[in-house]
Amino acid sequence: MIKKVSLHIYNAQILDVFNQKFEKTELWIDKNLIYYRGKSNELKAEKEFDAKGQYIIPGLIDAHLHIESSLLAPSELAKLELKHGVTRIFADPHEIGSVAGVSGLFYMIEEARNTPLHIHYMLPSSVPAAPFEHAGAVLAADALKPFYGFPEVNGLAEVMDFPAVENGDPDMLEKIRDAQAAGKHADGHGAGLSREQLAVYRSVGIDTDHEATSGKEALQRIQSGMKVFIRQGTVEQDERAILPVVRKNNQSYFSFCTDDKSAIDIEKEGSIDHNINLAIKEGIPSERAFTMASYNAAQAQHLENVGALADGFIADLVITKDPDEFKAEKVMTNGKWVDQLNSKVLTFTSPAINASLKIEDLKIPLKSDHAHVINIEAHHITTKHTVEKVARDHQGNFIADEKFAKITVVERYHDLGHGLGIIHGFNLKEGAIGSTIAHDSHNMIIAGVDDKAMIVAYDRLKRIGGGLVLVDKNGFARELPLEIGGLMSNKSYQHVIEKQKAMREAFKGISEGIDFDPFLTLSFMALPVIPSLKITDQGLFDFDKFDFIDING
Amino acid sequence: MIKKVSLHIYNAQILDVFNQKFEKTELWIDKNLIYYRGKSNELKAEKEFDAKGQYIIPGLIDAHLHIESSLLAPSELAKLELKHGVTRIFADPHEIGSVAGVSGLFYMIEEARNTPLHIHYMLPSSVPAAPFEHAGAVLAADALKPFYGFPEVNGLAEVMDFPAVENGDPDMLEKIRDAQAAGKHADGHGAGLSREQLAVYRSVGIDTDHEATSGKEALQRIQSGMKVFIRQGTVEQDERAILPVVRKNNQSYFSFCTDDKSAIDIEKEGSIDHNINLAIKEGIPSERAFTMASYNAAQAQHLENVGALADGFIADLVITKDPDEFKAEKVMTNGKWVDQLNSKVLTFTSPAINASLKIEDLKIPLKSDHAHVINIEAHHITTKHTVEKVARDHQGNFIADEKFAKITVVERYHDLGHGLGIIHGFNLKEGAIGSTIAHDSHNMIIAGVDDKAMIVAYDRLKRIGGGLVLVDKNGFARELPLEIGGLMSNKSYQHVIEKQKAMREAFKGISEGIDFDPFLTLSFMALPVIPSLKITDQGLFDFDKFDFIDING
Repeated sequence: MIKKVSLHIYNAQILDVFNQKFEKTELWIDKNLIYYRGKSNELKAEKEFDAKGQYIIPGLIDAHLHIESSLLAPSELAKLELKHGVTRIFADPHEIGSVAGVSGLFYMIEEARNTPLHIHYMLPSSVPAAPFEHAGAVLAADALKPFYGFPEVNGLAEVMDFPAVENGDPDMLEKIRDAQAAGKHADGHGAGLSREQLAVYRSVGIDTDHEATSGKEALQRIQSGMKVFIRQGTVEQDERAILPVVRKNNQSYFSFCTDDKSAIDIEKEGSIDHNINLAIKEGIPSERAFTMASYNAAQAQHLENVGALADGFIADLVITKDPDEFKAEKVMTNGKWVDQLNSKVLTFTSPAINASLKIEDLKIPLKSDHAHVINIEAHHITTKHTVEKVARDHQGNFIADEKFAKITVVERYHDLGHGLGIIHGFNLKEGAIGSTIAHDSHNMIIAGVDDKAMIVAYDRLKRIGGGLVLVDKNGFARELPLEIGGLMSNKSYQHVIEKQKAMREAFKGISEGIDFDPFLTLSFMALPVIPSLKITDQGLFDFDKFDFIDING
Repeated sequence: MIKKVSLHIYNAQILDVFNQKFEKTELWIDKNLIYYRGKSNELKAEKEFDAKGQYIIPGLIDAHLHIESSLLAPSELAKLELKHGVTRIFADPHEIGSVAGVSGLFYMIEEARNTPLHIHYMLPSSVPAAPFEHAGAVLAADALKPFYGFPEVNGLAEVMDFPAVENGDPDMLEKIRDAQAAGKHADGHGAGLSREQLAVYRSVGIDTDHEATSGKEALQRIQSGMKVFIRQGTVEQDERAILPVVRKNNQSYFSFCTDDKSAIDIEKEGSIDHNINLAIKEGIPSERAFTMASYNAAQAQHLENVGALADGFIADLVITKDPDEFKAEKVMTNGKWVDQLNSKVLTFTSPAINASLKIEDLKIPLKSDHAHVINIEAHHITTKHTVEKVARDHQGNFIADEKFAKITVVERYHDLGHGLGIIHGFNLKEGAIGSTIAHDSHNMIIAGVDDKAMIVAYDRLKRIGGGLVLVDKNGFARELPLEIGGLMSNKSYQHVIEKQKAMREAFKGISEGIDFDPFLTLSFMALPVIPSLKITDQGLFDFDKFDFIDING
């Protein structure tokens, strides 16, 4: 009996992930599935495709990332990812969840239906992340549970609140159990955990982690029963350190992720294709690198029929000319070639920005000329905490200068006030920069050397509904509006990349000698759970004391 | 902070399935889980256990079997399995389902709660197996679906009705979809399928198979995306043929099963421990054999926290002195050492045996002295179909003799009549044997050379509620009552083994030159879907014509 399928791909070297080798064979695709791998006289196809001897691998998978870090809406990031051979991503909508709660999560799910990229969501496990700042929403277990009904939801995202797990916090345990009861699982976020602390995570069934930063940490995770996502993003880059411990025997427990990667970087160097090319460069056989980037990731994320080019698997694949220098030539998801994508971003009704800031609010009265100062550590999300001698006016108020700028975090959801601090390392000669991206609560954060410019920045952010803003000494503002909750643009990825580059250029006009992304750095200054000194809407937070401190030194 | 757990096992060589090597390390067990693998100063335990340098491996798993084939109730088979280091089995209650429908399934689940062996059920996918015999029940998708609510139920068992899948039979597809929608999966039974036919199974998501009988068939299954259970049972023994294709690269897709194994054989040579020792003898490294028998099986059955000796995994383990000649010295399931087990078998209310048979019913009038004959093929479940010259009385009725015995299948559920045939190969000198185990419908099947003895056999089977019976020329009956649906005994495994041996001995008194188990052979004579000539309650079934035929030759 002759069976008729949709598409026949022949004349190809096709990866066999089960044996990790390329094989000259054929694929028969029917609707969204690979129907048959191999030559056959019993099959016919509506369409024929001559792969001209090229190599075919399963579509690449990003096992963990935050879409918000790209500043793009899901369907726009999708266009970039697909260009790079990524056909499936597992996203934690933690940032939009912190801003807009369940309506943020729902938007992300709905918006992602607009693209041929498979977008799975892992529900944010810690909103709010910490009790030291006001956030836009609280996502308790009760709020998350209904989302397991959505087919796109694949589990609970990076559990990061180690004390809550260790102490058996009921809401945290309920979140984890709800994921498991729904047949899903919980990803871990075990940054810096000891081998014994990993056991605490394992005791509640957490079975993946992307926070290994060394080969030793990676092997500890595997020994504990976790699967490891090797991360290579814009900020954290762990791949070179981990690759040496990936062996034939244990390779199946490793896959790749980007975690946080800017659209600029994805366009420049790639997404998971970059992880792959780096791995090949470091000596991993390409067949193994491709398997890690596809089948292994699907297995770690508990998807049974994803990531292999074999009967019954979802027809997600990528064609490349040279397996040792991977570049996606042609991409298929769900059995359909991905062509020009013309989707429009879905509109989101952001929560109103309910912040208020007057110029008098920016005064920092000091008791002496010594004050606690946040010191930027270039290319890190940590800061150094020092007490410095700073300038004061005749009333005793702090005066900002090129060395020490002023920084404020303004609560944006319910007008609950603002915190003030002094920051070193932006080298601002004039003006101010501001953003509504401020991990993890995403209040409004503004740094500047000129109170008027800071107020202009505040005003612009409020008017445009959030985004990135830069104000020069003349009060002239440039901005990248982020219409989706002040976190993501509703414009095309090309537009966002261009605008972001323009903002970085403009920053060079008001600062000097800075080689890091000032807006990315700014966005971590309000994250109190990372050392050493941070600023929230409630004031200066000293990580070592794990409490707020007074600014007077 | 010191964490206190239940048990600390030290001084042991502990298998690391993730790297397939033994490691001198320690296990910390808390309640039913392995809390931590490794030495630790941060842990304390209520109890200490010195393993005295012995080897510890994860509990063995039988990936597919029929409990009924042991003639034991689940909790009794469990005692045997646990002695052999098996801590988890995946059972298809197909036989009791055919006899007693949903109440049979429910009984198996409930009875299995009586043992520390983990017993998972895969729901029988084809009850009744074929339309050519009357069975005790019909289990359509609607009947099966509620059972996915039981935690013991892990999916749909060996889908064997290839035409139903290929033709998209709605009830079959619903059964498969229901399993998948419940987060479970469907096992396959692809006996003799071509590479293309495997694709039909894969297209509906069937992802395992235990019917490969050669290395080539095994590799075809893996290439198609299936996992392979290597079978070594009482009847089918495929392991030696498949082992040569198990390699380091593809080992993770192989695990072990017994499918059908008698209690006698399990006691004599072992269960999955036998598969392991055979594999080691054939050159598979013991670390790999143990991994196949534990972690790989759990993965194939979609259990995430089973089969490894690592944090967060269920504490099922076995201690052995010599990994290269495995023998279970001590067994743990759910964190508890298995000691003397004194459980009693749960009572089952079998469906009444509604059969009737009178001596006149056994007459086989023949038009000539040529008749169609079923020929036993020793050690196979197939038969040969011949036309033979047989003896007749003066009325033209068939006369049985040592060469050609009479065989009847009596419908046992609703008194729907009986079929009659002639069988060659039992070498009966006198009397009769009978059984209520008659695949797949388990009607009453009786073969004999003496009509009176056959009636005695029928009568005894009816009185004892089913079982095995043997009648000699004096009408003296020996029997093994199978109180649970006429399929399983409610007595101890020791009792059943002893009785079974006694029945085999007794058979030697009424027959000559037979080296196979006559009751096992008898049980397959009513299975119409296997070549070549079989007998059901509805008459002689010719597999090649796939229809009933007249007995006259």
